Amino acid sequence: MTIRIGIDYYPEQWTPELWEKDAALMQETGVAVVRMAEFAWSRMEPTEGDYRFEWLDAAIEVFAARGMEIVLCTPTNTTPNWMTSRYPDVLPMDEQRQIIRSGVRGHRCNNSYSLRMLGSKFIEAMSQRYAKHPAVIGWQIDNEMHFQECHCDTCNRAFVAWLQKRYSSLEKLNQEWGTVVWSGEYSSWAEVTTPLGTSKPKNPSYLLEYKRFCSDSVGYLLGWQLEILRSNCPGQFVTHNMWQYPSSLDYYDLHKDLDFVSVDYYPNELYRDYGDRSPKNGALSLDLVRGIKRRNFWVMEQLSGAQGAWMPIQRTPYPGLIRARSWQTIARGADMVVHFRWRSAVVGAEQFWHGLIDHSNVPGRRFREFAELTREVKQLGELLAGSTIDTHIAILHSHDQHTALSLQAQTEGGMHYMDNLSSMHNAFLKMGVGTDVINWTEELDGYKLVIVPSLFLLSEEVAQRLERFAAGGGTVVLTNRTGVKNMRNVCEMLPLPGLLAKAAGIVVSEYDAIGNSEHWIRNSEGQTFAAKQWCDLLELRGAEPIAWYDNDFYEGVPAVTVNKFGEGEVYYVGTWPEPSYFYQLFESILKEKGLAPKLQLPEGVELSIRTKGEESFLFLINLTNEQREVTLDVPYLSLLTSERLEKKMTLPALGVDILTI
Amino acid sequence: MTIRIGIDYYPEQWTPELWEKDAALMQETGVAVVRMAEFAWSRMEPTEGDYRFEWLDAAIEVFAARGMEIVLCTPTNTTPNWMTSRYPDVLPMDEQRQIIRSGVRGHRCNNSYSLRMLGSKFIEAMSQRYAKHPAVIGWQIDNEMHFQECHCDTCNRAFVAWLQKRYSSLEKLNQEWGTVVWSGEYSSWAEVTTPLGTSKPKNPSYLLEYKRFCSDSVGYLLGWQLEILRSNCPGQFVTHNMWQYPSSLDYYDLHKDLDFVSVDYYPNELYRDYGDRSPKNGALSLDLVRGIKRRNFWVMEQLSGAQGAWMPIQRTPYPGLIRARSWQTIARGADMVVHFRWRSAVVGAEQFWHGLIDHSNVPGRRFREFAELTREVKQLGELLAGSTIDTHIAILHSHDQHTALSLQAQTEGGMHYMDNLSSMHNAFLKMGVGTDVINWTEELDGYKLVIVPSLFLLSEEVAQRLERFAAGGGTVVLTNRTGVKNMRNVCEMLPLPGLLAKAAGIVVSEYDAIGNSEHWIRNSEGQTFAAKQWCDLLELRGAEPIAWYDNDFYEGVPAVTVNKFGEGEVYYVGTWPEPSYFYQLFESILKEKGLAPKLQLPEGVELSIRTKGEESFLFLINLTNEQREVTLDVPYLSLLTSERLEKKMTLPALGVDILTI
Amino acid sequence: MTIRIGIDYYPEQWTPELWEKDAALMQETGVAVVRMAEFAWSRMEPTEGDYRFEWLDAAIEVFAARGMEIVLCTPTNTTPNWMTSRYPDVLPMDEQRQIIRSGVRGHRCNNSYSLRMLGSKFIEAMSQRYAKHPAVIGWQIDNEMHFQECHCDTCNRAFVAWLQKRYSSLEKLNQEWGTVVWSGEYSSWAEVTTPLGTSKPKNPSYLLEYKRFCSDSVGYLLGWQLEILRSNCPGQFVTHNMWQYPSSLDYYDLHKDLDFVSVDYYPNELYRDYGDRSPKNGALSLDLVRGIKRRNFWVMEQLSGAQGAWMPIQRTPYPGLIRARSWQTIARGADMVVHFRWRSAVVGAEQFWHGLIDHSNVPGRRFREFAELTREVKQLGELLAGSTIDTHIAILHSHDQHTALSLQAQTEGGMHYMDNLSSMHNAFLKMGVGTDVINWTEELDGYKLVIVPSLFLLSEEVAQRLERFAAGGGTVVLTNRTGVKNMRNVCEMLPLPGLLAKAAGIVVSEYDAIGNSEHWIRNSEGQTFAAKQWCDLLELRGAEPIAWYDNDFYEGVPAVTVNKFGEGEVYYVGTWPEPSYFYQLFESILKEKGLAPKLQLPEGVELSIRTKGEESFLFLINLTNEQREVTLDVPYLSLLTSERLEKKMTLPALGVDILTI
Repeated sequence: MTIRIGIDYYPEQWTPELWEKDAALMQETGVAVVRMAEFAWSRMEPTEGDYRFEWLDAAIEVFAARGMEIVLCTPTNTTPNWMTSRYPDVLPMDEQRQIIRSGVRGHRCNNSYSLRMLGSKFIEAMSQRYAKHPAVIGWQIDNEMHFQECHCDTCNRAFVAWLQKRYSSLEKLNQEWGTVVWSGEYSSWAEVTTPLGTSKPKNPSYLLEYKRFCSDSVGYLLGWQLEILRSNCPGQFVTHNMWQYPSSLDYYDLHKDLDFVSVDYYPNELYRDYGDRSPKNGALSLDLVRGIKRRNFWVMEQLSGAQGAWMPIQRTPYPGLIRARSWQTIARGADMVVHFRWRSAVVGAEQFWHGLIDHSNVPGRRFREFAELTREVKQLGELLAGSTIDTHIAILHSHDQHTALSLQAQTEGGMHYMDNLSSMHNAFLKMGVGTDVINWTEELDGYKLVIVPSLFLLSEEVAQRLERFAAGGGTVVLTNRTGVKNMRNVCEMLPLPGLLAKAAGIVVSEYDAIGNSEHWIRNSEGQTFAAKQWCDLLELRGAEPIAWYDNDFYEGVPAVTVNKFGEGEVYYVGTWPEPSYFYQLFESILKEKGLAPKLQLPEGVELSIRTKGEESFLFLINLTNEQREVTLDVPYLSLLTSERLEKKMTLPALGVDILTI
Repeated sequence: MTIRIGIDYYPEQWTPELWEKDAALMQETGVAVVRMAEFAWSRMEPTEGDYRFEWLDAAIEVFAARGMEIVLCTPTNTTPNWMTSRYPDVLPMDEQRQIIRSGVRGHRCNNSYSLRMLGSKFIEAMSQRYAKHPAVIGWQIDNEMHFQECHCDTCNRAFVAWLQKRYSSLEKLNQEWGTVVWSGEYSSWAEVTTPLGTSKPKNPSYLLEYKRFCSDSVGYLLGWQLEILRSNCPGQFVTHNMWQYPSSLDYYDLHKDLDFVSVDYYPNELYRDYGDRSPKNGALSLDLVRGIKRRNFWVMEQLSGAQGAWMPIQRTPYPGLIRARSWQTIARGADMVVHFRWRSAVVGAEQFWHGLIDHSNVPGRRFREFAELTREVKQLGELLAGSTIDTHIAILHSHDQHTALSLQAQTEGGMHYMDNLSSMHNAFLKMGVGTDVINWTEELDGYKLVIVPSLFLLSEEVAQRLERFAAGGGTVVLTNRTGVKNMRNVCEMLPLPGLLAKAAGIVVSEYDAIGNSEHWIRNSEGQTFAAKQWCDLLELRGAEPIAWYDNDFYEGVPAVTVNKFGEGEVYYVGTWPEPSYFYQLFESILKEKGLAPKLQLPEGVELSIRTKGEESFLFLINLTNEQREVTLDVPYLSLLTSERLEKKMTLPALGVDILTI
Repeated sequence: MTIRIGIDYYPEQWTPELWEKDAALMQETGVAVVRMAEFAWSRMEPTEGDYRFEWLDAAIEVFAARGMEIVLCTPTNTTPNWMTSRYPDVLPMDEQRQIIRSGVRGHRCNNSYSLRMLGSKFIEAMSQRYAKHPAVIGWQIDNEMHFQECHCDTCNRAFVAWLQKRYSSLEKLNQEWGTVVWSGEYSSWAEVTTPLGTSKPKNPSYLLEYKRFCSDSVGYLLGWQLEILRSNCPGQFVTHNMWQYPSSLDYYDLHKDLDFVSVDYYPNELYRDYGDRSPKNGALSLDLVRGIKRRNFWVMEQLSGAQGAWMPIQRTPYPGLIRARSWQTIARGADMVVHFRWRSAVVGAEQFWHGLIDHSNVPGRRFREFAELTREVKQLGELLAGSTIDTHIAILHSHDQHTALSLQAQTEGGMHYMDNLSSMHNAFLKMGVGTDVINWTEELDGYKLVIVPSLFLLSEEVAQRLERFAAGGGTVVLTNRTGVKNMRNVCEMLPLPGLLAKAAGIVVSEYDAIGNSEHWIRNSEGQTFAAKQWCDLLELRGAEPIAWYDNDFYEGVPAVTVNKFGEGEVYYVGTWPEPSYFYQLFESILKEKGLAPKLQLPEGVELSIRTKGEESFLFLINLTNEQREVTLDVPYLSLLTSERLEKKMTLPALGVDILTI
């Protein structure tokens, strides 16, 4: 399938006269796909059972008539007023059992019976109506499903049932969670509830299970919708537009029965709670998305203008950003980029979440940039179609670690799992070396290097897989806070790193949660590097030290080690060093393995390679607002300009080029 | 009426013996008016229907006997315990429908039926008793009425009724609010509620209407009291002691049937949530108050000591501050200054909101300063009586913009309507040029220059009035975020500044919400000025540019323009420049119009002029803690010292002088 | 009784096999006492009335068999799930009458009838079972009882009853509280409630009484347990493990019927809400504990590893800290130090509140340090047994001032009673001069110098006692905010410092709540010192000034005075000067009184002296992480090393020595 550009459109917000004008301009611009019906429940079912699809038929017709394909959405993210009024159990309850009412959408209990009953009937009707429509190619279920703690009666009963399936008895649960602490033993299932307010520090095993249950509840809501769509629409795909990581949802599990992964990509917003908005994080986010099903994906919503809604209006995208960020998604595995949204809404709470065209409906700078992008993608779409990203390096990402480390802050200032993972991913990104970011429970065949940040919870299965991988010649990099707990969030009575101590060839004799205090490590060349968060004092059990602590009472104690294990080797990093340390460490590992980078990249330029058979396409994307020079290893052909590039190439601010040999 | 000094007094907090002593000292000091009965409901009606006015009769008698006039208050701000216990609907509910209980007064639902029923009976009795009392000159309704979101059943019903009056049908409401977004369409009035918690970002049209309803609910509470007082007390005035701006109440509307405006003026506290406590803001606050009814006003509570209650105790007023601030209110239109309060309370939550006399009841420094002030006001009161403030410059203030811009933050760090208005007002204040600050819907006859910050919501009526004003020879200064929306808080599908684009002779081709990023503009003389918050990229449609952006991708694009429009001209300021830019811009406009300032003022000295026929009184007030020199344009006579001042005059720290020619 | 070391142990969290191993290692290490059964209610009574003590019998047996003595706890801090499910009145309600559920223990209403009924039955059974057990030496009631605002029906009724006992009538209450302010008069007892939400600034007399009631409610919970234990266990002691100051509980009252005071001492955590973690505060905390019953005490929980639970994991204790802090408690009056805890929990919310041994169960550095400490204490325990701390200096600590000053912030940035008391205590600590810190209502016989920070509330009884003390030759140091109010939290209509103005020989003519503004005082030698928080402008009435304000409009006004009063003298400090001022002031007073310090101490080294008859033991403890030198006045014998020390001694980082002559 060729790579294409699409548009998110809300016909219910505009007059049919505007549909015609908008469709004409889309056709002229080269738009291939239009997503619609998202959030339009109250228009499609204005009162219970009164289905009204005529307006949607008409809207689809307008765009289909101009050659565009249609993606439809189930509208369950926005339960209408008639429903929440008549069926109050549709609304979720917070930990004080206060009703959480509508606002930014998503106002529904994932386990609600009424929602399932009314939603099933509606999706049954909608899917039957459009199952055979020639222009409708597929479905998006709901919108950006999110983690919702709900404490309603239904959720309480569902939680108990969920636990009963996982624990053979209440005695087993008491024992595995260690509820005896603080007299928390349950004497009857009737005493078990969701973690109601107001006192926070509850049993961590309980809290982790509840978080897992909440993620599964989202899966439940998706599941019953998927069942209907699969049964009625065999010829149409089903996907979901996920929000980016970090998330409290287990997206691996959530996507297991969908056709492909779609993501909403707003690179201005990424990681904003983490303070780091560098272009690097966008790449990680896309690598994570590609890793979910280990294949190419869609972008279902792509940044098109300044965002503003519950937050203030953000800066307008710098000239070139819309184009560069779209190419970035393709470079990292997107096969379709649907832009959010055609025109800014004039009504509603998202009035200032700007689309490609402003409220005035006068197409401006951003629209012109989008039109240029669409032209380029049309030009290269066929050529790039079918290409994928291949690499020998995997970073293991674990939703469980993210959850567990969030529940118990390991150190002052926190130990943010995704930030730490990101700091390791960044080292490869800076080198221009592609990595897969995959679920920690995946098989590792085909990889040569596996990076494994903090396996705080560790299963025997994963420990053994990593041992096998290293024993068979692979290289593993482990870090501090590995092997601390079992999968029930209970501490192991083992010297750290627990089940992986043997493979790492060390034990942790003591640790110090240094938080943001200034600490240093020193490598064998005598270079020093700043370190934060944590210091494991390492005792050698076969491993060799390659860096040592350089201050405090453990000055001279090993901080980083490497252990020969079978045919391979296992590194252990006992602290969180500054980025340059990871860069240097990984670079030396890559050189040893013959995986050294092709090009020397200037700051802010990203390289990604898609290959198809023998062909290989190098995407070079300058994500800075300044011009950059890249020195090439061999001559290349620019696919965008058809120019031949010899030694050097210049990328303007936010410039993009796609090279082949 | 001569200008006078008064006292806020709470006889119910002191013994009758103290009344006598206090009244004697007041008489000796020259106090003319005493306000009482505020908050004394539980003493006047200790249990339902049991009216006890004998103690109040006696207290009035003590002060009246010594020649003082009395202002009485309705006590509805403090509903007594017997009432909230027996009539729970008197208490308001928060957005989670939790009861908001008593504390800092104002614990009542403005729409409560019980409050109206019980309050009406009480005010009926009280007003009949004192309607003919020779010493009682007027009434204050309630106290510092404030915006109270209430979500009780009564308010929910009242809100729906209020909407039904404004919208011919629910379909109309759905359409005008754009509820279709996120499936928010109402299928029945029964689904419409006040904006209940917990999810914040709701439809902005809905939220704005709810805020208007809440302000109107305060008007309702005031209205039924006013009706009783008007009917029973034809010979007595009725006023209300408003808190200063910024406020969530529409004070223009609230005061429309009152005799005059009264304000509680605590210059230590003004704008404290905005971080700027400079003396400038006091002047704006007073100009706003004068603008409400476009005439002179009362100060009903004037700062008399360090404040402290729900906040920590503040610094004690610097020597001279009490006097200087009182003269400042007179300089800007006060005809009466009532001081809060005689003596600090020894009981209750306001123990440390200090009065003129401390708990010890030993009059000290602050009291001596007050006595001096009283003597001066007595000396000049007759001469100043009847004088008013005249100016050819109006700043338009709009409660709707304040509300709407608060609901949707336009930029990181916010776009605070009152701060922005203040930065424009400050430019005139610094020049010593008086301005009126009036409601944006007022007629503009008689003005030559009209300053109009951000008309985010814009009605056709106001747009046309401004066009007429400019066409007829007036000068208008518009700013960014003008014409964005209609009065329903819905974005206009027009190039910005919408209905005023023609008058301004520009359109906004794009904008950038820069927040606190550093930006610069450059004028035609090549001077640069810092700019924040917002950048409109201006496209000329007849206007001439007078300043340009000096950085970012829109360097060189016009930032400020002027357009000839009929006999007048319209300026458009596309960004928020630093104060010196406004100073320079306004100064050049004033010079052209022959309105240039009289005196060059040193930092921190305020000039205000009251005129009466041919006479004109210049108030010079040094609001700093340091001595200041003022250079005079012509010789003046000091009314306070009877000295003749030639070229120069010296104002000591917090010094005041009143000059005439 | 010899001084000893103990261990907090939770047999219910470990297997009987581990009990054996742990007991063996404890015996080998020299552990003398084991505390257990804390929090184990759900194990001892798994369902209502089903008492199971067999496992506890067995656990006690294991440790008793190895010679250890046992302290048992009543488990009422952790009500089991069966109880809170079946008897919901056991759980407290917050000010919005929302149920406060379990989490960090203490989930119970102190006044709950069900808790009393069920708890009494249980404690009856438990105490009968162990009353005669030869190894069980005593009881700890509950755990770290804490101030719990509860607003349930029971507490509301109990509060009214409590008030009815204290006030002869509702009229009296209305009058004493000044409820007339803001119409707060009660017309019936039925209107009186606990201070329900949501509006905070309520009548301060009411709030203070409610705080006292809450503290008394804790006393009630302790009281009924004590009654049972006293009746069943005449041969066993009863204590409670209190949390350190500052606290909202009146510990003086709470301990009045207990045998001795026990404290949980986590010096890493002390005062963490106050920003000051210097070693000084630990000493104050211990002095306060000793002062509660004016005799030696136990430490029931002593820091043994990094803390982490509801807060992030803290830094690991620096080598030497565990030993130094244990000796510090002994130096200041501890006769027993029980360490929390043997091994870190592998389950539950306190997994990362580290014990002496890590989860791995491999004893490490911290355990070795503990073992050394245990050996040393064993070596010196008999010698030190029976020694106490004697001093002629008392600092008066008042729980009422702490509460009242917290209710009404006196100045921007606050006036923290405990911080201020601490800054005065620190001056003596730095000199190495021991002080008692006692309840402000204690008799003062035997003291020569009494330091009295802010007697904001002042009773006639205390004022007269202080006058008598000074008149009889004692020296009193008073500070600003003395004598402001009576015991009902009502301001006195007296010149400040109210009832003590005569003794101080001054009156406060005005005050300025300067907060964090920079102010200065100057003494007669012309030295200047920074001052904060408050400035009383002092008017002399017989006193002599010894320091004056050095800036602002009151430059030159007296700031500190001394007044001859009878045979003694009274100092008055009108501001809060920097620490060096207190150091200098107290040093000069001590010199005059012949109480000058023995040694010149380097920064961070603490000196404390225990005496027994003629013998005297000097504890020198270096609480810094660096080596320190101490110059000795005379030769000493080190009891730890048996070395004779002449002029100088060196204390390594966190070093300890115990000297005698």
